[in-house]
Amino acid sequence: VSAEAEFIRRLRAIAPHPAARGLLDDAAVLTPPPGRGIVLSHDMIVEGVHYLATDPPADVAWKLLAVNLSDLAAKGAEPLGVLLGYCLAGADQDTQFIIGLAEALHAFGVPLLGGDTVSVPPGAARSLGLTAIGAAPAAGAPSRGGARAGDALWVSGTIGDAGLGLRIARGELVGPAVLLARYRCPLPRLETGRALAGTVTAMSDISDGLLIDAARMAQASGCGVSIDLDAVPLSAELEGFGSGRAERLAAACAGDDYELLFAAPAGWDEVLLRLCQPYGVMLSRIGYFSEGGGLALRDSEGAVPLPARLGYEHEGRDQG
Amino acid sequence: VSAEAEFIRRLRAIAPHPAARGLLDDAAVLTPPPGRGIVLSHDMIVEGVHYLATDPPADVAWKLLAVNLSDLAAKGAEPLGVLLGYCLAGADQDTQFIIGLAEALHAFGVPLLGGDTVSVPPGAARSLGLTAIGAAPAAGAPSRGGARAGDALWVSGTIGDAGLGLRIARGELVGPAVLLARYRCPLPRLETGRALAGTVTAMSDISDGLLIDAARMAQASGCGVSIDLDAVPLSAELEGFGSGRAERLAAACAGDDYELLFAAPAGWDEVLLRLCQPYGVMLSRIGYFSEGGGLALRDSEGAVPLPARLGYEHEGRDQG
Repeated sequence: VSAEAEFIRRLRAIAPHPAARGLLDDAAVLTPPPGRGIVLSHDMIVEGVHYLATDPPADVAWKLLAVNLSDLAAKGAEPLGVLLGYCLAGADQDTQFIIGLAEALHAFGVPLLGGDTVSVPPGAARSLGLTAIGAAPAAGAPSRGGARAGDALWVSGTIGDAGLGLRIARGELVGPAVLLARYRCPLPRLETGRALAGTVTAMSDISDGLLIDAARMAQASGCGVSIDLDAVPLSAELEGFGSGRAERLAAACAGDDYELLFAAPAGWDEVLLRLCQPYGVMLSRIGYFSEGGGLALRDSEGAVPLPARLGYEHEGRDQG
Repeated sequence: VSAEAEFIRRLRAIAPHPAARGLLDDAAVLTPPPGRGIVLSHDMIVEGVHYLATDPPADVAWKLLAVNLSDLAAKGAEPLGVLLGYCLAGADQDTQFIIGLAEALHAFGVPLLGGDTVSVPPGAARSLGLTAIGAAPAAGAPSRGGARAGDALWVSGTIGDAGLGLRIARGELVGPAVLLARYRCPLPRLETGRALAGTVTAMSDISDGLLIDAARMAQASGCGVSIDLDAVPLSAELEGFGSGRAERLAAACAGDDYELLFAAPAGWDEVLLRLCQPYGVMLSRIGYFSEGGGLALRDSEGAVPLPARLGYEHEGRDQG
């Protein structure tokens, strides 16, 4: 039995959903909920670029799934299933990958529906792809570009943890495991995204960094955006490394947060907090949109000069 | 402007469909036709494995799209859009790729809706992925496993051309350009697949080879299948290289045909031919399904021993 046949045999065992057709057909065939739009995301992660060759394969699987589900979360979508594009690595790594994938699929309640498995030439860096399919909210999926001047800018959870986690993974820093977990095993904000979708004026996830993703939201909305750096929510673990302007700026540019960034009319704080209360996810109001364009930063000491890089611009921009 | 930003700028120009949201949002949001299932295919092609580094990038784009649409065709689906997972290669190659992709999208009438673009480390295996989304036939998508004992086995078009085309591409053979085109720029049988979907008992495309794909259909259907090698349709160009048993066997194992393979009740020849007549695609009845299991081959001289390899089993099996 080839490594590939063995891998696919194991995949079948974790793909019992009828739409997967036992991974034996040309394609998956899914019955979507009636009257809802379909939300589609495809993100790739490349060894040595988006994850480290030393990352445990089970965590790579988790991250590949989580980053795509995070895109669905940002559109308020209910996940319907995923397709996996996998490059074989070797029996041990492949098995660990499937174990992690099964765990993540179960954690997020999403079925594996299909995909493709390929062999790559020996020694070549691998790129893994995943397509996530979701059902849009009945009232439509919020866009990245719907913020209006006067809207408040909000963020879920805490920012910058994954950036420190990456430094821990690289051996540049010693720190608590929770930070490493934020980098390796992000939690897409699916329930929060669904709860917010009908109320926000714009929503995206934070993958490349709070500042760059906020600047993109402002640009797509034809607005400017101003952020209060002191209001950016930091975890106690991150604050253990300092919470001055430099640390806050680093957190706001770090990326890999997979938190939700959204705009909502000013004064709707109560509504938003009540909507999300059941899910135990903190929401923080960190700025506002204004006429004009661009990104402005301030803190209690005044205006904060923008850093040369707002986030991971070299990373593949998600194109939809 | 980075190579990646430039690539995405060009992609945007060929993605005007509203569901693509300008490739600026986290995800594509599509309104599917009401009351229809969703058909999903994701196939990858790897440089040096599924295509040659010397293949023109425009043809690689065409093939990547065509092989996925071929999976939709086999389910009788109407394509709704595609997501591209692209590894950057360098400005010239990337531009040629987009030109070819635009041409293929236009040829098949399919919108680009989203995806991801990544940079890979030098020496990495470039693997390109594409997800195709289609609307299933209103009456449901045929499966690979629905053939019944007594059904006839049919195939569209001609078999083996792409196999010779590959040998021409590799410089092993000198031959007509039409064979090379069959390898590099396959034509998914979308219209024929849609016309047949309500009538066939099983359908798949031929990607790995007629014999192996027929054996898989028989196995998935719990039947045996018997094929008349003399009935396997060959093009005049292929017959120019010979049409004896050896050449026919080679054609039936070559793969990359992207023709439709399907089962239909015996005696329905007239119905099938009339359904497909508008599309100018030849249909050939090449065998029948029987009780039991396995694949049997015969020709005018009697039983034909099965070759050691029925097709490209090393290639990534499409998983759905």
